[in-house]
Amino acid sequence: MSYSERARQLLASSQAREGDTVRLKVRGKEHEGILMPHHEFSHPDVIVIKLKSGYNMGLKVDEGSELTLESRAQERTKKAKDAVNGNDLPTVSFLGTGGTIASYVDYRTGAVHPALKAEELVATVPELSEICRMRSHVVFSIFSENMTPQNWQTLASAVADELNDGAEGVIVPHGTDTLGFTSAALSFMLGDVPRSVLLVGAQRSSDRPSSDSYINLLSSARFCVNANAAEVFALMHGESSDSYVHIHRGTKVRKMHTSRRDAFQSVNCAPVARLGMQGELEILSECKPKSRTKVVPDTRMEKDVALLYFYPGMSTEIVKKVMEDHKGLIMAGTGLGHVSRDMVHVLKDVISEGKPVVMTSQCLGGRVNLNVYDTGRDLLSAGVIPGEDMLPETALIKLMWVLGRTQDMPEVEKEMLTDRRAEISRRRDL
Amino acid sequence: MSYSERARQLLASSQAREGDTVRLKVRGKEHEGILMPHHEFSHPDVIVIKLKSGYNMGLKVDEGSELTLESRAQERTKKAKDAVNGNDLPTVSFLGTGGTIASYVDYRTGAVHPALKAEELVATVPELSEICRMRSHVVFSIFSENMTPQNWQTLASAVADELNDGAEGVIVPHGTDTLGFTSAALSFMLGDVPRSVLLVGAQRSSDRPSSDSYINLLSSARFCVNANAAEVFALMHGESSDSYVHIHRGTKVRKMHTSRRDAFQSVNCAPVARLGMQGELEILSECKPKSRTKVVPDTRMEKDVALLYFYPGMSTEIVKKVMEDHKGLIMAGTGLGHVSRDMVHVLKDVISEGKPVVMTSQCLGGRVNLNVYDTGRDLLSAGVIPGEDMLPETALIKLMWVLGRTQDMPEVEKEMLTDRRAEISRRRDL
Repeated sequence: MSYSERARQLLASSQAREGDTVRLKVRGKEHEGILMPHHEFSHPDVIVIKLKSGYNMGLKVDEGSELTLESRAQERTKKAKDAVNGNDLPTVSFLGTGGTIASYVDYRTGAVHPALKAEELVATVPELSEICRMRSHVVFSIFSENMTPQNWQTLASAVADELNDGAEGVIVPHGTDTLGFTSAALSFMLGDVPRSVLLVGAQRSSDRPSSDSYINLLSSARFCVNANAAEVFALMHGESSDSYVHIHRGTKVRKMHTSRRDAFQSVNCAPVARLGMQGELEILSECKPKSRTKVVPDTRMEKDVALLYFYPGMSTEIVKKVMEDHKGLIMAGTGLGHVSRDMVHVLKDVISEGKPVVMTSQCLGGRVNLNVYDTGRDLLSAGVIPGEDMLPETALIKLMWVLGRTQDMPEVEKEMLTDRRAEISRRRDL
Repeated sequence: MSYSERARQLLASSQAREGDTVRLKVRGKEHEGILMPHHEFSHPDVIVIKLKSGYNMGLKVDEGSELTLESRAQERTKKAKDAVNGNDLPTVSFLGTGGTIASYVDYRTGAVHPALKAEELVATVPELSEICRMRSHVVFSIFSENMTPQNWQTLASAVADELNDGAEGVIVPHGTDTLGFTSAALSFMLGDVPRSVLLVGAQRSSDRPSSDSYINLLSSARFCVNANAAEVFALMHGESSDSYVHIHRGTKVRKMHTSRRDAFQSVNCAPVARLGMQGELEILSECKPKSRTKVVPDTRMEKDVALLYFYPGMSTEIVKKVMEDHKGLIMAGTGLGHVSRDMVHVLKDVISEGKPVVMTSQCLGGRVNLNVYDTGRDLLSAGVIPGEDMLPETALIKLMWVLGRTQDMPEVEKEMLTDRRAEISRRRDL
């Protein structure tokens, strides 16, 4: 549905165009914000503006309403550009990969586009220019479900370059679908990072009133600059309203809801930190401190590693066929890490061909323990590596990374059982 | 480590044997309970008794300790047998399947055995005889990871027989590993049940002080008799201490932790009820009321349905190979229900061969929505059925059940999108 005659006239008389900053007076109350496109589902009398808080507000205009043009979109963009070039704050790098977070609304057409340039990011989140000097480039722009190990390698190298070039932190806006996989991949590939690498996503695009992209982006810059933390993290809303964001360890985070803004959870450990809407930082778990060392990434990956979730009656043929052209296997077993008796035999055969099998749990919560029941003990005898409390997805990426460097079975087992990037919690944490 | 000389003499002088009810006085305080076997990790001076609460208590004896024999294990068993045969309370059927819950300690050897007979259950949980008249038989006794669709069929028929024979409820002690799969299978196969069918598990066997089998079994009998509810449910601890149990819908429950006693959670809906330790019943969600109708189970299942979790870089060969000998596929995609672009094409080919593909989300929480992003729309065009907010595991079992009755693609789609056993929540619940 398009605008009513009344709304159209109000817009025409002010000469305001979408993207401009306007002041709208409705029923005696004034609201300032960016004029947004008319939404097809909105009432014809409703004009939508994006408030300074990042929220979109729809206002139903009547005969007493007044609309004033405050500033043109172009002026804001120019101011943003000056901010990018001119300030002497710490430099933070933004590496675009695609996804909802990186999208911004083209105020002329209403379409959602990737926000690729630093100026576009500043125009979307003006406060960024008060926190850091921004550097940005687009590594690629894809839906995150199309990510591959090769994309992780490209991204890891790009992140390393930024850190080695002195960035105070690197922010990677990323699609949420596979954000947890990428954060695990970067954790292993980058090794000891001297400053924070922050994967950040949004569950709702910035044209929606409930978008979380504004607060997540702003918080990620605040965290990079203000927290003395040097690891690979993921940052997303901490609960469903706009009260705080959580910073999660890159190897322990998982998307646990399709649509909630607080979809991401740390599994088997607490989040690393909580950051309030005004930047109040609360560290919940010890992190590595910042340093000035260089990063030496090791991006070697064996991409032919499979992840299979077990279910009752699962045909052993599946494992046999999949392992014809895979070099390692992560099983997400039931409970403490179990599969059917038949499957134990097939896993034994896989291992005897020199292909490692790591057992994780589809429960996600808790630790694999192959010492409690007969099935577990049989799995251990067969040579299955118990995946401790690693997420199945993290174990998958770790095995890709380990197999990228060695195929020696005892060495692979030792590596998989050694905590490298906080992917294995100490027992007392559980 | 075995008993100390002091503990041994105390036991010898009282003539108490393991399994007997004893009274033990230590440091001026008296404790009554069942004499348990000495645990190899216990201090040599420690004597363990199982209290009436179901908890095991280890007491370190000293020179002032006294031990009195109260009653022999045999007397308790006889009393239990009388209870089973003699009372006129409602009849509850216990159908054994194996698993930790059904285990009890042989007090002579200390070994954990399945508790198969009603008398053994009453001896383990004496209060059962005050709640119901018990009928029991062992359908099978296996580790639940070895369950197959055929076991579900056998069990469904056995449950139907018990209900049709007038049982006020049927309790199925079951291993926790695949309890959620079985509860979903029974939900679909049994259709409208006239009284409750309650799957019940234990995370810790009854020889452990922290065992949850006592309270879970007792609560399941209380629920069958006292709640006006007629569905297939799963009952487990509701939180980590012994304050209440939760009753979950059979199609919405998932084991979410490897070891916690409150490992089971209702996903995408609230639990049906909460039951306090003294039997205080709180209904949290409307259930179907009891009736006296007969059950007509439909146990037809197409067992060749596969479940695959997607991950970045997943080879499309996996799907191609798996679908050579499977007749349907559940994908657990990322986020709202996505897979890579390559995979969309392969799924389209699978569907064109007359094999249905249902998309669920590996997030577990939330609902699949294939209308938001391009990838989702491409999946819909390819003919993929959006699995709403069904758990991947529940969708697997539902598709097995649907394909057991029809292979007509539009019919399969219609059935998968129709809520049959509360497996699909209404939108406003999320």
